Amino acid sequence: MPIRPTISLTTDFGLQDYYAGALKGALLRACPEAQVVDISHAIRPFNIVQAALVVQNAYALFPEGSIHLIGVHCAYAPDFRFVAAKAEGHYFVVPDNGVLTLMFEGLMETRALPATPSKSGLPVIEAFTLAAGHLGSGQPLSALGTPAGPLVERIHLRPVTTRSRIRGMVVHIDHFDNAQVNIRRETFERVGQGRSFAVFFKRHDPITVLSRYYTDVPIGEPLCLFNSAGFLEIAVNMGRAATLFGLQEEDVVEVVFED
Amino acid sequence: MPIRPTISLTTDFGLQDYYAGALKGALLRACPEAQVVDISHAIRPFNIVQAALVVQNAYALFPEGSIHLIGVHCAYAPDFRFVAAKAEGHYFVVPDNGVLTLMFEGLMETRALPATPSKSGLPVIEAFTLAAGHLGSGQPLSALGTPAGPLVERIHLRPVTTRSRIRGMVVHIDHFDNAQVNIRRETFERVGQGRSFAVFFKRHDPITVLSRYYTDVPIGEPLCLFNSAGFLEIAVNMGRAATLFGLQEEDVVEVVFED
Amino acid sequence: MPIRPTISLTTDFGLQDYYAGALKGALLRACPEAQVVDISHAIRPFNIVQAALVVQNAYALFPEGSIHLIGVHCAYAPDFRFVAAKAEGHYFVVPDNGVLTLMFEGLMETRALPATPSKSGLPVIEAFTLAAGHLGSGQPLSALGTPAGPLVERIHLRPVTTRSRIRGMVVHIDHFDNAQVNIRRETFERVGQGRSFAVFFKRHDPITVLSRYYTDVPIGEPLCLFNSAGFLEIAVNMGRAATLFGLQEEDVVEVVFED
Repeated sequence: MPIRPTISLTTDFGLQDYYAGALKGALLRACPEAQVVDISHAIRPFNIVQAALVVQNAYALFPEGSIHLIGVHCAYAPDFRFVAAKAEGHYFVVPDNGVLTLMFEGLMETRALPATPSKSGLPVIEAFTLAAGHLGSGQPLSALGTPAGPLVERIHLRPVTTRSRIRGMVVHIDHFDNAQVNIRRETFERVGQGRSFAVFFKRHDPITVLSRYYTDVPIGEPLCLFNSAGFLEIAVNMGRAATLFGLQEEDVVEVVFED
Repeated sequence: MPIRPTISLTTDFGLQDYYAGALKGALLRACPEAQVVDISHAIRPFNIVQAALVVQNAYALFPEGSIHLIGVHCAYAPDFRFVAAKAEGHYFVVPDNGVLTLMFEGLMETRALPATPSKSGLPVIEAFTLAAGHLGSGQPLSALGTPAGPLVERIHLRPVTTRSRIRGMVVHIDHFDNAQVNIRRETFERVGQGRSFAVFFKRHDPITVLSRYYTDVPIGEPLCLFNSAGFLEIAVNMGRAATLFGLQEEDVVEVVFED
Repeated sequence: MPIRPTISLTTDFGLQDYYAGALKGALLRACPEAQVVDISHAIRPFNIVQAALVVQNAYALFPEGSIHLIGVHCAYAPDFRFVAAKAEGHYFVVPDNGVLTLMFEGLMETRALPATPSKSGLPVIEAFTLAAGHLGSGQPLSALGTPAGPLVERIHLRPVTTRSRIRGMVVHIDHFDNAQVNIRRETFERVGQGRSFAVFFKRHDPITVLSRYYTDVPIGEPLCLFNSAGFLEIAVNMGRAATLFGLQEEDVVEVVFED
């Protein structure tokens, strides 16, 4: 744990409301030495898949021991709980709504935060402040709350694979209007074994070449590549792929390998 | 005053322009030790009611002695002035356009900032930098500028109450598309005295139950509750209330109690 | 170079993706003492003109020696390079795509960053982290990378001037819907020499008076003034000029002086 803890924030609180500001104020009060860093407050409301993708792709670049708070789809129901976990050398404090199990599989140390009487009326702020104050001052995760037991599980958005096909779907349209697909490079290589392939989506002509850079094709032409997070991406060089092809989240994308 | 002052920013400067960046740069130059925290730069242009709501709901969670800068509807007219005030243990530096009187009633220590020759061409940045440098270094408010005298007053957006009715209006649509109404829990309880009630808005069926959590009703069903800031809110569990009901800012919402 | 370096970020990474968060995490890892400040992550994709305008108007207010990272239109082509430069007492680290030559003319010390094997898959993050770690720890620019040689040049968006005319264009619509024109006050004064003038745009009545403040005209009336960055701006007092006049980027604006 560094002397000056880094706390990252990923929420669906939006940019026009007081929630993000209130959270940051409360964190600085609990943990004055913290470096508080916004990852995004513009996660679409309730969209834990987007939140999981964003944090999964960003957290590893932060200093080891950083505390990542994910405030997305916080239900405020009476039996709702927040959990803290340690994975890959980083701390995660999240609502127990499946966002953590989308990011990590298998064993982690997880602790359930105590339910606190809501002073601010915003339980998520109180839970985050409590956990960040505890972890940020160097106290061990094992001394926070109680063992969490099983977490809420979300069905993993894994593609379906057969001997010659991978059937996945669009999981995210990014700022450049590229469509990210839930097909990882490892899956592609394992199933494909170097065979020729065609990527089908909507009713458009399939893409049959894997590019390394957006600029591998002429401006305005479609391409696919594995992006920096290791996922298949359908893009247009200097263009807007999702708009051009009418691609939306949950649209099917299928890779068919030559038999 | 903490050694490392916290400065919060709430502006209508937007996210695509240089104003917010220029302000932050100037603050760090004037006050290198400051912790500068964005509350929002996406307040709608000139919307001092939204700015007042956002800061009112966020400031108290910040460390005591924080300096809250509100850069909304800064007119740049020759006779325009900026004021600094202390209220509830926090400092506020604002244009004298009514935003402060919307937030606080009654007596506060208020100081008018000196008009400075505009070096940057952005008087708001110069005023904020001057005040933050002064207050952030621990100098007293009373040594800043001159006594402000009466501030510009905005008509308070208070609901009208009779023995059995409260007539308010929507003051904010939040990121989750919930409609916040200018009716406080205290007003509701004082007028209602525990009587049955119906909340009327647009031509929709009234809501006759007060929920505690969004999840108190089935997904997709409307509800009303008092939000974390203490205001009545019309919402839909996991849905988009304002869009569904066509609610906009300034729409009338009326609570009618049983006689 | 201050003990605690200030690093500003201006990117087209957007607000909903992981790129901005990943960059900030990597910077804090490389340079834990840095003050990392967002200028904007909402530059329109690939829009290096907007990025140049925003940084040009903001950087000078930052502490001397600040490091300004501009992550806009980063192509990721195999021969693509990043450069670091020092100008006006500030450091700039940018893709070599013309954004720097839009901001500064003439001689600067420029260094090409070494191409690094992309660990993160995001070369821009690696280049920025390398340069910020180097410059932020007080090492000289001259010890970073290799001499850059000629940079990619963009055609400067300069207006065309004759004895009695300046023909420019809209280069930016800001958050308040004001239209910024690429005509500087110096050019206006040099060509005009105090003569009467008319500003023509679209098919609207020309504006023949230069205002000093937005409030110099009645609410809802059009005006033009030189904004805080020294550029001609077409605005409406408390209104939305670009929408009202149908002004868009690249629309022609012409100043005609009396003969």
